[in-house]
Amino acid sequence: MVQAMALPRNTVGIETVIGILKQRFGDRLQTGSAIREQHGHTTTWIENQSPDAVVFPRSTEDVAEIIKACAAHKVPVIAFGTGTSLEGHVNAPAGGISVDLSQMNKVLAVHASDLDCVVQPGVTREDLNTHLRDQGLFFPIDPGANASLGGMAATRASGTNAVRYGTMKDNVLSLEAVMPDGKIIRTGHRAKKSSAGYDLTRLLIGAEGTLGIITELTLRLHGIPEAISSARCSFPTVDAACQAVMMTIQYGVPVARIELLDEMSVRAANAYSGLSLPETPLLLLEFHGSDNGAAEQAETFGQIAQEFGGTDFTATSTTEDRNKLWQARHDMYWACLQLRPAARGISTDVCVPISRLAECVTATQNKASELGLLAPIVGHVGDGNFHTLLLIDMENADEMTKAGEFVGWLNDMAISMDGTCTGEHGIGQGKRPYLTKELGSAVSYMAAIKSALDPDNIMNPGKII
Amino acid sequence: MVQAMALPRNTVGIETVIGILKQRFGDRLQTGSAIREQHGHTTTWIENQSPDAVVFPRSTEDVAEIIKACAAHKVPVIAFGTGTSLEGHVNAPAGGISVDLSQMNKVLAVHASDLDCVVQPGVTREDLNTHLRDQGLFFPIDPGANASLGGMAATRASGTNAVRYGTMKDNVLSLEAVMPDGKIIRTGHRAKKSSAGYDLTRLLIGAEGTLGIITELTLRLHGIPEAISSARCSFPTVDAACQAVMMTIQYGVPVARIELLDEMSVRAANAYSGLSLPETPLLLLEFHGSDNGAAEQAETFGQIAQEFGGTDFTATSTTEDRNKLWQARHDMYWACLQLRPAARGISTDVCVPISRLAECVTATQNKASELGLLAPIVGHVGDGNFHTLLLIDMENADEMTKAGEFVGWLNDMAISMDGTCTGEHGIGQGKRPYLTKELGSAVSYMAAIKSALDPDNIMNPGKII
Repeated sequence: MVQAMALPRNTVGIETVIGILKQRFGDRLQTGSAIREQHGHTTTWIENQSPDAVVFPRSTEDVAEIIKACAAHKVPVIAFGTGTSLEGHVNAPAGGISVDLSQMNKVLAVHASDLDCVVQPGVTREDLNTHLRDQGLFFPIDPGANASLGGMAATRASGTNAVRYGTMKDNVLSLEAVMPDGKIIRTGHRAKKSSAGYDLTRLLIGAEGTLGIITELTLRLHGIPEAISSARCSFPTVDAACQAVMMTIQYGVPVARIELLDEMSVRAANAYSGLSLPETPLLLLEFHGSDNGAAEQAETFGQIAQEFGGTDFTATSTTEDRNKLWQARHDMYWACLQLRPAARGISTDVCVPISRLAECVTATQNKASELGLLAPIVGHVGDGNFHTLLLIDMENADEMTKAGEFVGWLNDMAISMDGTCTGEHGIGQGKRPYLTKELGSAVSYMAAIKSALDPDNIMNPGKII
Repeated sequence: MVQAMALPRNTVGIETVIGILKQRFGDRLQTGSAIREQHGHTTTWIENQSPDAVVFPRSTEDVAEIIKACAAHKVPVIAFGTGTSLEGHVNAPAGGISVDLSQMNKVLAVHASDLDCVVQPGVTREDLNTHLRDQGLFFPIDPGANASLGGMAATRASGTNAVRYGTMKDNVLSLEAVMPDGKIIRTGHRAKKSSAGYDLTRLLIGAEGTLGIITELTLRLHGIPEAISSARCSFPTVDAACQAVMMTIQYGVPVARIELLDEMSVRAANAYSGLSLPETPLLLLEFHGSDNGAAEQAETFGQIAQEFGGTDFTATSTTEDRNKLWQARHDMYWACLQLRPAARGISTDVCVPISRLAECVTATQNKASELGLLAPIVGHVGDGNFHTLLLIDMENADEMTKAGEFVGWLNDMAISMDGTCTGEHGIGQGKRPYLTKELGSAVSYMAAIKSALDPDNIMNPGKII
C-alpha cells in the first residue's frame, strides 16, 4: 500500500456536523467503522482513509442540507457512488462526511423521441440499460465496472464504446448539482446543443466532486442498433495489431469497440475463461449498424487485418458467441489477477495519439520485463488508451518501489508523446504529481476556479488540485 | 439599431497602452476610424461600438505581450476573428484594444495518422479544408460563414454538420491560450480523451474571449467519406417535416446534414437561386458513408419521408447537383434578404428537444404572422435548432419594438420547452438577459469563475456575464 498524505482535521466541526446530520437523517447517517472503511478507498494501491460518517440522501434537497451543514462548519464532503474509482477519489484525507448517493437511484424520465433521459446520480449504468431495453434504447458508456452514472460523470469515465460514442463528456446533456455553498443549480436543459455561457456541464464532468455534487443527469441515449456483430483477430506483434487499428480508424470504419489484449492477457483469458485463443496479440471488435452496414464494417476490417498479418479472423453475429467474447474481455481484471493469485493489481491508464500507440505499448512491455514486473496489457486502442495491470505483492517494498518507478516512467512517456497520464480513471490522489507534469501552469487556473467556487476547500479535499 | 450599453472608459490607461503597443508593433497597430469601426459589431441589429485601436499579432508571444500591457493598465482586450458573430461579441463597450488574429493563420501541423491537426486561431474553416483536401481529410464544423477557427471555438459554433459530427466542443482536442494575466497555457495535448483535471478546453470553448484568447487549436479531423450523397424532399406541413426528422434520428440513420426550409424560405431560394422547388416545407439532407451505406441511408430516409406525406423525394450523388443544392442553402441569408431588399436581417437561434420542434416552429410562424413580421425559417433540425431571419426596417421604431417582442417571446418559449435561447450563436451582448432566464443561479458561478480568472474584467467586458 502507498500512504496517502493526511490533511489537517477539523475535529470540532466534524463532530458538530455529525450531530446535526444525525438529528436530521437518523439511521441514514452511519458512523460504524466497517461502513466508514468501505467508503474510503478500497480498490488497490492507495491506503484507506475513512470518512467520519456516511450519510444516505434521497433527494437533491437532502444533499443541499448536508452540504449547507458542512459549509457552515467547514467540514469535508466526499461524494460516493459505487466506490469503483482507482486513484483514491473517495478517500477522506481530512476526514469528513461521505455522501453515499446509492439511494438516489431513480430513472426520473425517459424521453424516447428525444433520445435522452433524466436520472439520479446513484443509478448504475447496468440498471439504466435494463430500464431502457424495452424501448429499444441504450446508454453506451461502459467503463467495465457497474459504476453509478454520477460517479462516471464525476470522473469523466469512458471505456470500450468510447471510440464510437465518446466519453461521459459527450453523453451528458446537462446536470443538476449542489454547489459548495449548498445552492442547487442546473447547468443546462435538454437541447442537443447550446452556446449559452460557460460550459458548467463540462466543468463538473471530471471535477471528481471537488466543485459540487451532481444530483441529476440528463443523458443522451442511442437506439439499439439493428445489427451488432463481433470479430476477433490475432496478430504476430503488438505493432501489427496497432497498425491495423490505426488504418481501421483512418478508413472511417465506425467500429463500436476495438480492444487490444497483449499476449500475456490472452494467456490469462484462455486460462480464466476456458478459451483457446492463439497466445499472440489479439484485437476484439464490435460493429453496430444496419445488417448490411455491420457486415460491411466487419469485411473492411478483415481486409485491413490481413494486410498486417492478422490471422484467425472470426466474425460472429450470434448473441451467444458475442457475449462469450465480451464476457471474457470484461473478466480480464480477474483473469489477470489469476496470473499471480497472491498479488494485487495496480492499473495504469495512459492515452496517446494513435500513431504512437504501438511504440508506447511495446516500450511498456519491455520496461515491465526489464524491471521483472508482471504487467498484462489491455486497451481501448481505437482511442490510443491502454491499461497495464501490474501484479504486485504490496507487502514487498522492493516490488512497490519498482511499481512506482514503472508507473512514473509510463506516465512520463505518455506525456512526452503528446498524450495524457489518464485517459479515463482521473487524477484523484494518485495522479496529482502527473497533472502538473502534463499541464504545467494550466493547473494554477484550475486551482483559481476551485478557490473561487469552494473557498473553504470542503468539496473532496486533497483530490486533483 | 438597438443601442448597446456603454461601460465606463479608462481613457488614460487606453492611451498609455496604445503608446506602448505602437512602439512595439508599429504599423501592426492601427487607430484609423474605418478600421476601428470595422472591428466593432458590424452584423445586423446591435449598434457598433468601436475599439480604440486594432493590433495584429503574429504569434502567441505577441498576444501575451498585448495582454500583459493591457493587464498592467486595466485596459479591455477584445479578440477578433472574422467579425461574423451575431450578438455583438466584438463590440468594445468600454473601448480598448481589438486583437485581430487574422495574421495568425498558419496550419502548424497535420497528423494524418492521428486524424488531428494544429492550427493558429486565424485559419478559416475553408482555408483549413482546402489545406486538408489532398490528404483525404476534412474538418466538419460549418457555421455557414467562412469564420476563423479561433472564433468558432470561442462561440461554440456548430452548423449544418453538427447532427452527425457534433459542435466545436466535440471537435477540439485541446487549446493553447493566453490568460488574462498574460500567461500562456495549454489545456491538453493530442490524446483523443483525457480525465486529467478540470476541462479547461471546454471552459474556453464558448467563453467568447472573456477568459482568455485562444492562440492555438488542436482539432479532430475526419476522413472524407467514400460516398457523399444528397436528397431533398417536400412536405405538406412543417409538422410533417419535423416528424420525419424525428423518426430519422430515432432510427439511428447517421445523417450528416438534415436542414429544414419553411415555405417562405423555399420561395426565397427559388427566386434567388433560380430553382423551382415546390413552395412547401422542404428538407435537405446529406449522407456520408461507404457507397452502400450512403445509398442505404437515403433509401431509409425516403421510406420514412413517404410515411409523413413527403413528396418529390430526389436523391443525388453527383457532385454538381449536390453543390447546387447546398449552395442554395448557404445562400439563404442573401436569398431571404431579397424578400425585402431595404430591410436588414435579425437572426434568432433557439434550440429545443426535437419532440418539441414542430410545435415550436409552427408557433413561431404564427407569432410572426400575428405581429406582421416577415420571418423566413431555416434550421439544423436534426439537432432541434432553427433560425428565423426577421426582415426589419431598422429605422422604423414600431417594427423594432415588434422585433424585440418577437425575439423575447421566442427565447422564452424555447426555454419553457427545456431548450435554449442559443444553439450556436452565443450570448455576446444581445442575449445576456436570456442567459439568466435560462440558467438562473448557475450564472452567478460563471461570474465567480470570471472574477477569479479576470479580476479586473479586461477580457471582452460586457459579454456573457
